[in-house]
Amino acid sequence: MMRRIILSAGLLLVPLITVSAQTAGEVRTVDMMWFTWVGSIAALVFAFILVIVILRKDAGNDRTKEISKHVQSGAYAYIRQQYKIVGVFFVFLFVLFLVLSFGLNLMSRFVPFAFITGGMFSALAGFIGMSIATRANARTAWGARESLNSGLRIAFSSGTVMGMVVVGLALLDLSIWWAILSAFHLPPREIPGIMITFGMGASTMALFARLGGGIFTKAADVGADLVGKVESGIPEDDPRNPATIADNVGDNVGDVAGMGADLYESYADAIIATMALGSAAALGISGLSPLQLIQIPITIATVGVISSILGTFFVRAKADATQRVLLRALRSGVYLSTLFIAVLSFLMIYFILGSQYMGIWGAMIAGLVAGNIIGYSTEYYTSDNYKPTKSLSSESLTGPATIIIGGISLGMLSTLIPVVTVVIATLVAFFLSGGFAHPALGIYGVGLSAVGMLSTLGITLATDAYGPVADNAGGIAEMAKLDPEVRHRTDALDSLGNTTAATGKGFAIGSAALTALALLSTYGDKVIESIKNLFGSSTVPSHIERFYQGIINVTRTASGTIENVSLSINLLDPRILTGLFIGGVLPFVFVALSMRAVGRAAGDMVKEVRRQFQADEGILKGTSTPDYARCVAISTRGAQREMILPSILAVVAPIIVGIIFGPFTVLALLAGSLVTGFVLAVMMANSGGAWDNAKKFIENGAYGGKGSAPHKAAVVGDTVGDPFKDTSGPSLNILIKLMSMVSIVFVGVVIVLNNSITQLFG
Amino acid sequence: MMRRIILSAGLLLVPLITVSAQTAGEVRTVDMMWFTWVGSIAALVFAFILVIVILRKDAGNDRTKEISKHVQSGAYAYIRQQYKIVGVFFVFLFVLFLVLSFGLNLMSRFVPFAFITGGMFSALAGFIGMSIATRANARTAWGARESLNSGLRIAFSSGTVMGMVVVGLALLDLSIWWAILSAFHLPPREIPGIMITFGMGASTMALFARLGGGIFTKAADVGADLVGKVESGIPEDDPRNPATIADNVGDNVGDVAGMGADLYESYADAIIATMALGSAAALGISGLSPLQLIQIPITIATVGVISSILGTFFVRAKADATQRVLLRALRSGVYLSTLFIAVLSFLMIYFILGSQYMGIWGAMIAGLVAGNIIGYSTEYYTSDNYKPTKSLSSESLTGPATIIIGGISLGMLSTLIPVVTVVIATLVAFFLSGGFAHPALGIYGVGLSAVGMLSTLGITLATDAYGPVADNAGGIAEMAKLDPEVRHRTDALDSLGNTTAATGKGFAIGSAALTALALLSTYGDKVIESIKNLFGSSTVPSHIERFYQGIINVTRTASGTIENVSLSINLLDPRILTGLFIGGVLPFVFVALSMRAVGRAAGDMVKEVRRQFQADEGILKGTSTPDYARCVAISTRGAQREMILPSILAVVAPIIVGIIFGPFTVLALLAGSLVTGFVLAVMMANSGGAWDNAKKFIENGAYGGKGSAPHKAAVVGDTVGDPFKDTSGPSLNILIKLMSMVSIVFVGVVIVLNNSITQLFG
Repeated sequence: MMRRIILSAGLLLVPLITVSAQTAGEVRTVDMMWFTWVGSIAALVFAFILVIVILRKDAGNDRTKEISKHVQSGAYAYIRQQYKIVGVFFVFLFVLFLVLSFGLNLMSRFVPFAFITGGMFSALAGFIGMSIATRANARTAWGARESLNSGLRIAFSSGTVMGMVVVGLALLDLSIWWAILSAFHLPPREIPGIMITFGMGASTMALFARLGGGIFTKAADVGADLVGKVESGIPEDDPRNPATIADNVGDNVGDVAGMGADLYESYADAIIATMALGSAAALGISGLSPLQLIQIPITIATVGVISSILGTFFVRAKADATQRVLLRALRSGVYLSTLFIAVLSFLMIYFILGSQYMGIWGAMIAGLVAGNIIGYSTEYYTSDNYKPTKSLSSESLTGPATIIIGGISLGMLSTLIPVVTVVIATLVAFFLSGGFAHPALGIYGVGLSAVGMLSTLGITLATDAYGPVADNAGGIAEMAKLDPEVRHRTDALDSLGNTTAATGKGFAIGSAALTALALLSTYGDKVIESIKNLFGSSTVPSHIERFYQGIINVTRTASGTIENVSLSINLLDPRILTGLFIGGVLPFVFVALSMRAVGRAAGDMVKEVRRQFQADEGILKGTSTPDYARCVAISTRGAQREMILPSILAVVAPIIVGIIFGPFTVLALLAGSLVTGFVLAVMMANSGGAWDNAKKFIENGAYGGKGSAPHKAAVVGDTVGDPFKDTSGPSLNILIKLMSMVSIVFVGVVIVLNNSITQLFG
Repeated sequence: MMRRIILSAGLLLVPLITVSAQTAGEVRTVDMMWFTWVGSIAALVFAFILVIVILRKDAGNDRTKEISKHVQSGAYAYIRQQYKIVGVFFVFLFVLFLVLSFGLNLMSRFVPFAFITGGMFSALAGFIGMSIATRANARTAWGARESLNSGLRIAFSSGTVMGMVVVGLALLDLSIWWAILSAFHLPPREIPGIMITFGMGASTMALFARLGGGIFTKAADVGADLVGKVESGIPEDDPRNPATIADNVGDNVGDVAGMGADLYESYADAIIATMALGSAAALGISGLSPLQLIQIPITIATVGVISSILGTFFVRAKADATQRVLLRALRSGVYLSTLFIAVLSFLMIYFILGSQYMGIWGAMIAGLVAGNIIGYSTEYYTSDNYKPTKSLSSESLTGPATIIIGGISLGMLSTLIPVVTVVIATLVAFFLSGGFAHPALGIYGVGLSAVGMLSTLGITLATDAYGPVADNAGGIAEMAKLDPEVRHRTDALDSLGNTTAATGKGFAIGSAALTALALLSTYGDKVIESIKNLFGSSTVPSHIERFYQGIINVTRTASGTIENVSLSINLLDPRILTGLFIGGVLPFVFVALSMRAVGRAAGDMVKEVRRQFQADEGILKGTSTPDYARCVAISTRGAQREMILPSILAVVAPIIVGIIFGPFTVLALLAGSLVTGFVLAVMMANSGGAWDNAKKFIENGAYGGKGSAPHKAAVVGDTVGDPFKDTSGPSLNILIKLMSMVSIVFVGVVIVLNNSITQLFG
């Protein structure tokens, strides 16, 4: 413990020393970009140390080791297959970008490479998290033999590895690209625009990982249940069922690898978007340089890493700690990190910008507070400690229909607080950072509030990602026939994880909305920039000006060259309303396709399990081992096939709408899909979470407990909720950002093609 | 038949003669407002004749008469109770309006009275339709003894009465108010603005009728099933069950009275909104007067009435006609009406505006075509003749969870076509009516497309409203133990009704979206007008200008007085995004509250039925008659209590947001709730419809038929779908318009209060 405190104090000193070395208040342009390397390396080294600690733990007896091995090889089988298909998609886009940049000069030549690295790092974050989770599961089960606390230590360390790898790799990718682009002598103000492409790479990968992983998990779940339990009458988690391993693999590929890629994307996108906004906002404000504003989000992220590392040291409890004490320990870790980041970021912003712009610190804090409020609201609506879920479980008394209606209604009602919170955070961030005087600075503040919300990701993700490890540990304890007390303890850890995960989800959803909001502005800036670039200093073609009459305002010098181009995205313009409507419907279509995908992939799984039972009768007798890997591969193939259509929808829709209706309709489309996507994401996450916990509430003894009619009704709710909360809901967070990224990256192409079309009619 | 054709020819001549009496092409201002009286009286007289025809039919034997009587008195019991509670609400608003207009001079003094008449006429339309439906039900059952065709004749006549009363009363109210306001020497251009208040009255009443009726129906349904079928083991539609009558009453108060008030509102709102837009659009266009543009929607409505009446004469078939032939007959009636209206409206517009503005006719036709497309799309997604619902019913094979997931996903997917259709209709209407040169004229075209979509309401509503009559007739046939062939025939009529109702729903949803879209612009105009009125010709207070910087653009004369005030509702402004988000979440909250209301009201019903069974053992033995009326009253009270919160939400939300954030945030709020409200309304209607028909598909023999496990799963889907399609979904159509109306009516109050708040901060 002592050694750790010394280490933390040392890390804490880095920003303090830097700050004290400068005279405060003076406006200057210091280059703090090197500081990102500190954050990145600190996170990765810390993760590496934890990996060593975890791997030194005992993985248990032969049985637990074997089962863990099966889950591990299944997860790798999934990842192999996933990379094959996603690889094709990435190669296609990479080649397309090569053509568009080197061939047609429609985008920067760094774009193809930035895109590829974004995707690779996102995948890597998920992969490392998953690798360690599949090794920590058996160790957690074995540790839980000793005490609740030792189980928690291992599971939480595994979650922390994930958290640290995500933030570490994100900062590493940022640092590398910053160094490369600086080496090419690009001015700081142009760099973030290019880096957005790596955000698009990360988002694309994340969407595949979340959607594919989500489809996989639910397909395996349903397949295992329908053929195993219902048709063949063998119990749950029985090793004779070929889909059982796939079911456990699902926890790892969906809830761990998917979540890792997802949050890598959230984190990186929020930072990059804010950097891009900063590069634009500094213009026209005396005493502010682009570099200053670009540095703020990444230095906040870096002090966030340090705060998170410090926070993890406070997640400690005595060996005989109860569940309640452990919850307090977890929470105190998060709270202390929040406190650290609040203080450190104040110092950093003061150091970089001086006392005049401290409202920007307020904007960041607004995001941090909003994240917590959304988290609590999620917990209130989905935990069986509170009224909503308790009363939902009572609706199971009148059958499955009423609990379904109740759950949908609960989810819809639960959208109010998060939406109002995000709205208030946006206004506060905008206002505090001086948006009424300088709108661009205000939007930059909104971006910073998203960065603030995610700044403690290192530790909040840890509290979220340890849940699936505990869940897996429970499965292993059951299959390996360990002492029932072990299962009891892993269940306690799992339920603890559900509570802390609620907060984690709040951060993911809230930050997605704020980031997407900030990206709207970035897109607007990009449109103007592209129009200027494409048409040079000559006039904007008159047919374009005619077509966008009232939207583009071009002011010209006496000689006719463009002096300024500004946008007025009038909500009452039918071309804008068109975008709003189409954008509003897209998340619904996306959810529809992704939920249907779960059904189809489950069908494939059902066929495969039946086939194995028929091909080898020894499987059911327990004399031969079923082909777990093949089952995993089949479900993987199903998942990968089914995830393509919804993903393509996300990438293609804004491009097609842009080509037909122009870039301004796309702006409205992004706003429309942000609104419905955000609301739907909250609804689906909370309906799903509440059904899950309502079922658990009954399983813990209410309304007749396990096997009663109300329990059966609650199981129907839980099954409906699975794709809600684990497939479609979280994918929506990625969707709304990916659509913005795609629009930004393709803006030049869209304007040129739309130009040709309007020329035909103009 | 011959007599009818002569009558139709006579009516058809009215517009033709009027047209020929003028020299075409010449631009002049003719006053055609008298023509509305023709439409109104024609519709009401025709309805009156049909009522006499229906009442002359034989109501059957004592048993059918008695049951019909019970349903009737139940329906009246509901209406009595409803008026008590709605009355309180209306009196409150009436007094508030009196204070605001006479006391504080914040709105026109006609507002309180216009509001009251709008509500009264809306209620009256629903009431008359319901009265005749509760009389036609036994007659339809008795008629169906003879043939399918004679059953259809009676039910369809009852539906036609509803259709004609709705359009007749709407035009009557319009005519009366036009006459009154003209008598007070108000210039034509100011009249539509005041008439919007009666739109608000109609919408408020409609929301209560739809929501209350919807909650009532579903509460009675669930109550009857749970205690009657499940607890006491008596069959469905058994007269011993006190809630059985309530169940049948529900069809009448929800599907008939609720729908009548709803469509009265849609129809009146579309016309009034377009009149209001017309009064503004004519300004600044040489050769167009406000009166001309104001006249177009009402003359289209009037020729629509004539066309609808003509159309009904073609809904005829031989006595031994099959279901298929009858469907063709119904459709040919609608198609012919559509053809008539297309031709007649062309002549009318040509006559009123001359050849220069015939694009406006194109805008109207765009709406008519869009309505049909949305109708077909609804039919495709919800009819068991097509793939989506067929494959949905197959998902019942794997239990209730999969059919729920499938239905939600189907509903979400089905939103794409209606949204894209509305978007295209909007753009086409805007473009054809010259919106790129004169935006206000373009928006007027959008309003006209809504009027066009609803212009054949007289007959489309008839094809929609006869369904519940046939449904009731089936119940009566069952309870009165008529020949099973009768029930078979009423079922055939009912299923026919489902198909034609799909088209009707398409019109209701599509027109709601277009009307709400048009109302957005009206609201924008009203804001500018109010700011000018409130602050006179002096300057806009500087704190307001500062607060709305970038949104309001004020140009001044040299002396400092206001020359012009224009709006630029910039989508990227956080104050606008705030409105968009809050607006986007409101429909979700509304749906949540209304679905929860169904659950609670059903609970009341369950208690009442149990109480009656316990209080008098003779009821279950069949020796004493249960207290049907009390059961109806209990459920009514529950419904009325539960409908208050969601309704108040709709009225209060835009006012509160306006007071806090200002009228421009309200504009964005309306746009946001329009987008999500529209998409959710389509989704809920189609999910519900598909579940209903998937269940029927199984009952007709698929997957083991009635009583099989798949059937039970499908029943769960149907029960979930009930509040979707009959309570929350249709109420959303009203909600989005009511919110716009409320915002328009309260705009002055909101600006003054918001002014005080910004003064505090400014």
